[in-house]
Amino acid sequence: MYLVIVGAGDIGIPLIDIATRSGNEVVVIENDPERADRVAGEYDCLILNDDATAHEALIDAGIGNADALISTTDRDPTNIMVCLLAQEHEVPNIVSVVHDPQHMNVFRQIGVNTMENPQELIAQYLYRAVARPAIVDYMRIGEEAEVFEIQVTDNAPIAGKTLIEADDGGLLSDDVLIVAIEREGEDPPITPKGRTRIEAGDLVTVYSAFGAEPELTDVFGHPEDRLR
Amino acid sequence: MYLVIVGAGDIGIPLIDIATRSGNEVVVIENDPERADRVAGEYDCLILNDDATAHEALIDAGIGNADALISTTDRDPTNIMVCLLAQEHEVPNIVSVVHDPQHMNVFRQIGVNTMENPQELIAQYLYRAVARPAIVDYMRIGEEAEVFEIQVTDNAPIAGKTLIEADDGGLLSDDVLIVAIEREGEDPPITPKGRTRIEAGDLVTVYSAFGAEPELTDVFGHPEDRLR
Amino acid sequence: MYLVIVGAGDIGIPLIDIATRSGNEVVVIENDPERADRVAGEYDCLILNDDATAHEALIDAGIGNADALISTTDRDPTNIMVCLLAQEHEVPNIVSVVHDPQHMNVFRQIGVNTMENPQELIAQYLYRAVARPAIVDYMRIGEEAEVFEIQVTDNAPIAGKTLIEADDGGLLSDDVLIVAIEREGEDPPITPKGRTRIEAGDLVTVYSAFGAEPELTDVFGHPEDRLR
Amino acid sequence: MYLVIVGAGDIGIPLIDIATRSGNEVVVIENDPERADRVAGEYDCLILNDDATAHEALIDAGIGNADALISTTDRDPTNIMVCLLAQEHEVPNIVSVVHDPQHMNVFRQIGVNTMENPQELIAQYLYRAVARPAIVDYMRIGEEAEVFEIQVTDNAPIAGKTLIEADDGGLLSDDVLIVAIEREGEDPPITPKGRTRIEAGDLVTVYSAFGAEPELTDVFGHPEDRLR
Amino acid sequence: MYLVIVGAGDIGIPLIDIATRSGNEVVVIENDPERADRVAGEYDCLILNDDATAHEALIDAGIGNADALISTTDRDPTNIMVCLLAQEHEVPNIVSVVHDPQHMNVFRQIGVNTMENPQELIAQYLYRAVARPAIVDYMRIGEEAEVFEIQVTDNAPIAGKTLIEADDGGLLSDDVLIVAIEREGEDPPITPKGRTRIEAGDLVTVYSAFGAEPELTDVFGHPEDRLR
Amino acid sequence: MYLVIVGAGDIGIPLIDIATRSGNEVVVIENDPERADRVAGEYDCLILNDDATAHEALIDAGIGNADALISTTDRDPTNIMVCLLAQEHEVPNIVSVVHDPQHMNVFRQIGVNTMENPQELIAQYLYRAVARPAIVDYMRIGEEAEVFEIQVTDNAPIAGKTLIEADDGGLLSDDVLIVAIEREGEDPPITPKGRTRIEAGDLVTVYSAFGAEPELTDVFGHPEDRLR
Amino acid sequence: MYLVIVGAGDIGIPLIDIATRSGNEVVVIENDPERADRVAGEYDCLILNDDATAHEALIDAGIGNADALISTTDRDPTNIMVCLLAQEHEVPNIVSVVHDPQHMNVFRQIGVNTMENPQELIAQYLYRAVARPAIVDYMRIGEEAEVFEIQVTDNAPIAGKTLIEADDGGLLSDDVLIVAIEREGEDPPITPKGRTRIEAGDLVTVYSAFGAEPELTDVFGHPEDRLR
Amino acid sequence: MYLVIVGAGDIGIPLIDIATRSGNEVVVIENDPERADRVAGEYDCLILNDDATAHEALIDAGIGNADALISTTDRDPTNIMVCLLAQEHEVPNIVSVVHDPQHMNVFRQIGVNTMENPQELIAQYLYRAVARPAIVDYMRIGEEAEVFEIQVTDNAPIAGKTLIEADDGGLLSDDVLIVAIEREGEDPPITPKGRTRIEAGDLVTVYSAFGAEPELTDVFGHPEDRLR
Repeated sequence: MYLVIVGAGDIGIPLIDIATRSGNEVVVIENDPERADRVAGEYDCLILNDDATAHEALIDAGIGNADALISTTDRDPTNIMVCLLAQEHEVPNIVSVVHDPQHMNVFRQIGVNTMENPQELIAQYLYRAVARPAIVDYMRIGEEAEVFEIQVTDNAPIAGKTLIEADDGGLLSDDVLIVAIEREGEDPPITPKGRTRIEAGDLVTVYSAFGAEPELTDVFGHPEDRLR
Repeated sequence: MYLVIVGAGDIGIPLIDIATRSGNEVVVIENDPERADRVAGEYDCLILNDDATAHEALIDAGIGNADALISTTDRDPTNIMVCLLAQEHEVPNIVSVVHDPQHMNVFRQIGVNTMENPQELIAQYLYRAVARPAIVDYMRIGEEAEVFEIQVTDNAPIAGKTLIEADDGGLLSDDVLIVAIEREGEDPPITPKGRTRIEAGDLVTVYSAFGAEPELTDVFGHPEDRLR
Repeated sequence: MYLVIVGAGDIGIPLIDIATRSGNEVVVIENDPERADRVAGEYDCLILNDDATAHEALIDAGIGNADALISTTDRDPTNIMVCLLAQEHEVPNIVSVVHDPQHMNVFRQIGVNTMENPQELIAQYLYRAVARPAIVDYMRIGEEAEVFEIQVTDNAPIAGKTLIEADDGGLLSDDVLIVAIEREGEDPPITPKGRTRIEAGDLVTVYSAFGAEPELTDVFGHPEDRLR
Repeated sequence: MYLVIVGAGDIGIPLIDIATRSGNEVVVIENDPERADRVAGEYDCLILNDDATAHEALIDAGIGNADALISTTDRDPTNIMVCLLAQEHEVPNIVSVVHDPQHMNVFRQIGVNTMENPQELIAQYLYRAVARPAIVDYMRIGEEAEVFEIQVTDNAPIAGKTLIEADDGGLLSDDVLIVAIEREGEDPPITPKGRTRIEAGDLVTVYSAFGAEPELTDVFGHPEDRLR
Repeated sequence: MYLVIVGAGDIGIPLIDIATRSGNEVVVIENDPERADRVAGEYDCLILNDDATAHEALIDAGIGNADALISTTDRDPTNIMVCLLAQEHEVPNIVSVVHDPQHMNVFRQIGVNTMENPQELIAQYLYRAVARPAIVDYMRIGEEAEVFEIQVTDNAPIAGKTLIEADDGGLLSDDVLIVAIEREGEDPPITPKGRTRIEAGDLVTVYSAFGAEPELTDVFGHPEDRLR
Repeated sequence: MYLVIVGAGDIGIPLIDIATRSGNEVVVIENDPERADRVAGEYDCLILNDDATAHEALIDAGIGNADALISTTDRDPTNIMVCLLAQEHEVPNIVSVVHDPQHMNVFRQIGVNTMENPQELIAQYLYRAVARPAIVDYMRIGEEAEVFEIQVTDNAPIAGKTLIEADDGGLLSDDVLIVAIEREGEDPPITPKGRTRIEAGDLVTVYSAFGAEPELTDVFGHPEDRLR
Repeated sequence: MYLVIVGAGDIGIPLIDIATRSGNEVVVIENDPERADRVAGEYDCLILNDDATAHEALIDAGIGNADALISTTDRDPTNIMVCLLAQEHEVPNIVSVVHDPQHMNVFRQIGVNTMENPQELIAQYLYRAVARPAIVDYMRIGEEAEVFEIQVTDNAPIAGKTLIEADDGGLLSDDVLIVAIEREGEDPPITPKGRTRIEAGDLVTVYSAFGAEPELTDVFGHPEDRLR
Repeated sequence: MYLVIVGAGDIGIPLIDIATRSGNEVVVIENDPERADRVAGEYDCLILNDDATAHEALIDAGIGNADALISTTDRDPTNIMVCLLAQEHEVPNIVSVVHDPQHMNVFRQIGVNTMENPQELIAQYLYRAVARPAIVDYMRIGEEAEVFEIQVTDNAPIAGKTLIEADDGGLLSDDVLIVAIEREGEDPPITPKGRTRIEAGDLVTVYSAFGAEPELTDVFGHPEDRLR
């Protein structure tokens, strides 16, 4: 993929890292000379120290051949100008960071894919780390449903039980599905069947139609057992 | 929960938003007067305009009663000093943003939960938006396995088939599990059984032990059918 | 007219002056506190010291009722974001200054009226003042045609002649039209007929299909007669 | 023409562009090193990075041979000092931008041509774009008279009529003159005769002794027909 | 005298001090708020914190009634603009500091009195203090002639002699005139006659048509006798 | 003379100019790199870009061989430190600018010659230019006496008279002495005798035991005759 | 004691703390408004926000009654000017920080007590902490002699021995004197006699005419026994 | 010793000086380019211009081989991060400056040696210089005991007495020990015996179990005899 990345700041840098390591042809446009220098020395990409809202900068970046452009600057107006110029050059795939949620609609109107509230994403993860410390990772499905990973503690009600036993014992309702089990020494994760036995220490991926409610997460271990 | 949040910057602000809306008692310590002012006027929390590495600031924030402290400043040294001071006051749950991946170990050594690479998280989402535009959201399970959401296009091979038919037709291997189906008008998402039929337009949650490879995602629609 | 003006800088200030003196209801949004203050004390308008790319600022400015919005900031990305937000609120008439000529097309694509190259306009006037000092004011018509005002000198070939005499004498070709004659004591300007006599000192408005070529302007006086 | 331009800012840059493209020998004096650098790389002119109020800078610029000097800095005192020094060297044609209208008289007293209120010129154009959106370009003649360009709409009263018919129908008074007609495919513009027919879509240049009053402009189309 | 002083900097401040102590009515215009404040608290004058090149500032300063205006800012262009505006208001006596000697002529052309090279004046005094330490004060008369004050040392050739004796002894040529003698206890200085005796310790005012050459100054004492 | 000059600012620059032109060996110490550069290119002296309060800088400047050091920086504490260090190296002649009159005594205590109130000197000259415009230059002798230069106007009472006639006519009292007369074509100035005739246009050097009182200066011309 | 402290920076602040806690009447002069404010709110002293090199500031500080003045600013020239002014007011005791060792002599010449090399003092302590970690505190006596505190380790040769035994065993030479012994539970420290027994864990104060050489310090424990 | 020093500021510079002069192999990490440059030119050490909290900087500094690391930056959070990273690399001896006394405990918890309150150390010395001017240097032993150096004045009670006479005369109590006597011409200092005679001018090192009380210090001379 021929990829133009605008901005080499806090978000741009790891993006450049991922994109170059994934074997893409990457061109970066960064206005700040110091940042541009830093990137130039470190990643396998072409770096232009220029203002991406200047037409020449985009031409120099080979915008006409780009498969995608990602705008990551910390100013929404700059991002939207860059996206509009990219549209002029008919870049097939245009994505932008949007900082002010009130601007989300404007980006959508002109037909640009957006990364919703990047900082809010981080904030949610941080909040979860204190509010639901048992849960290692999670993904929302629609309004309430959720897929989440949770560690099974030594004294967890489900520890040592097969899935059938857990169902029978009322530990898992119909709205809950054990999707996968990560266990030391097993790779890929175990795809559970009815007779698969859950063990203490397992990292279990769970789907729940009604989210990670305490009644459900307690099945995998009590909060106080998880404290350092 | 009595929660002390250090830093009201790009990450701190949405965190304050989530934490106050979730009904917690929140105290914020922010060194920059302008930022402190902005928070004071907008969120239902106590805001201290002070340097959180100053002992008095933490005392004023009621650190002794805090259930948790989250340090979100953009300087790792500041975050680690705040975390060490919070440990002195025996805050049960301490979480910190870490900016330099090389510092991750230091935080772990002193026993602080960390938010891994926040900017990298965003970068991954942005990259996926151009590299795998078909995939709406996803979650890594271990090294290779993945849970992901994908939209079913009109001409997708799986469109109109039941799960049994899909299995039989070799569309879905044993390492793949359809976890849930979001469909207009259905809430919560459908928990699929063998006879459940996949329809064009469905947003399907899929578990794959070997990730979202093109052979798998193509089952839900060809890339060119997804372009605007 | 209910008019929202964004930016109270070098261009915004005289615009506010014209707009308020013409009896419009004017709201100004200016991000810089000092500039906002200066306007507040001097013009009969509402001034908001805010960032016009913030949704709330536009709401506060009553964007929903605005007949027109003019964006005059010195950053094109800011102007385009403001214009897009104004379109969301269906402001009937949206005009923007555009600084980089390469951005002109982007503004046009989204349907915003633009002020072409403001600094270039000034530059053209300055250049003309040294390149064609005889010409007092002018307006381009299409590619080559021009309407211009020129002073008739004492020894000008046309001085003392009627238009018919001038035509006969070959002084004025068919592509040239004397539109109006400003003369001391005459108000409005004289609409010339064939027998109208051109006098030295007249300020003549001329249309020429091929511009203000020296052969034409010399008819109204030689350059050296115009030097101080 | 050997032309010295003082200042390479917002106004100076397009002036340099016009002056060099018009084949003049141009020397630019700009005090700011960054601006001087930018010009040096882009235009075919000599650029001196110096303070134009320093005698040596003017000597280096060959002031003794200059046909004209244009001072475009954004400080009136600097402009007037430059103009006075240019007078010492008997530059035949000296023009200056003047920012504060109250300073206009001082420049005139010392005998310098001035560009009246550059920002106000732009402001007038912007204001007209919302106040009289029908009018494409215009030029004032004396106090009230005006030459203006206006587009003829589909349902305009004058559309489809010859000038004679328009006169007879009372659409055009004696104080009004159709100067030229720009029409797709016609170059130069049509010089209208009595039998020339006005068509919808024509861009008509009109002279009116009493300005572009609504009664007159409505003849060329109703405002609501012009809205997007 | 009604006196307007522009600038309250290094030169303006002592000027304000002299002018107010001499009983004049003084108005000061100073653009820098801090400097303006400092003056306001210390001198008996009206102080305007404004830009003196702004017409309103001069009006507020009562320029119409001023007997004199002295411009002391450290920028020549500002000084010249102020002087031109003062001329517009027909201030009878206009004086300005001029920093760049090359600008001296411009000021003279427009008819403004100038203070020649203020820093050079100081420099000359400093240089004289090391080059001719014997001379206490001096004043140039034309190209070479000089009036100077010099202290008579104990062993000076002239000490103890009358003027007649000094003349006869060839100590004083015809081009030299003893103008006055300051002596402890005598006030005003002694106007010397032929029989007046010069004493060691006298401070003698001398006129010399050919300046203070060593042969002449040595008559009043040898340099080494003057060292501390 | 081997001369060390500290500071190349407003006062230092003309001092360097005088000192080098007078044929001295000059070393300049200036801390600011830009100023140091400017001097290096323009004057025939050694320039050290260093802090003169650093011992090494003075050593590099050859302080041990210096005949004199003049400290001209605009900070009194820096000047005093430099002077003290120069005393350590037994420089025979040390002179310093002093900015705060309250510091004058401290400099004197440590035995440093000082330039009294440089800005006040300039201020006095400026003030005289408006308060006593007739007087071209002057020098104070003791408390009241003064030597001054004054131009003789056309209608001056003394014009056309010999000194004897002037004495007899009571125009000049005993306390007044005509020291010298500068006249077009005469060089050196005329040393006046009793029969020397004062002419209109002469520039006369006058000594007066009681200063330049109006009664005296009027003898050389009425103020209104001097106005432009 | 009536004490004037100049400077409320890194050194001034703890000095103010000590001086006020010791019951002195303290006046602080600090030029920086922020620092002055911080002091004002925290210490029981009079704080003047002024430039201490200004005569008025010292008068306001009651310099005439001061028993002592300590100058702590980080600029030596400022300190020396303050000290000289304090001498003018005959302050009996004047102390100053000196930053450049080369300036030490100048301060001494004018008779000011100085704090030698403050940062070097700290640097010496830090260096000793790594170079001689066994030594807890120390004081130089003349060129080589030293008094130092050292902890006695469990296996130290001297542990368990009386001073007599240590002397006899050749552990302590004639140039070494055990001055005092700090031991848990003993206050004041034990003044050792010949029969006093040194115990492991004692903190011993030792005088050595030839410094803390390894042969000597090893008597109190081997370095490797001291490592954590 | 292989020594890594972090920070080349006020404390770092003299530390580098001591450490290099003592023959250690020294590597300095300093983030500020100017400071890094200054060190590079002056000391015999390797200087890295980098952020010491960056892992690579420590690797480049050879942290793995370091015998000790001293962190001297003026920010405690930076110092603690550096110390934690040094612990990761198992540096045997880690020392840090600590600026906020409230942070002292955090450093101790993680096992880092600290320099207590560097500025306070200086402040104490300065305060002593005015509060106890008789005492030249001193060292605290425990809570109250002290070793101090004091000069013997001409009229001191102890001057001219042997130690035995002094004891007998009740001048020295049992809690006091004369440790050493520095005397012109004697090197090393005299180790006093009972018959050693104290002379005026001696610099005596004294141990007192109850500190340097006035009753004790007066024995070596009255305060007023010490005043200049």
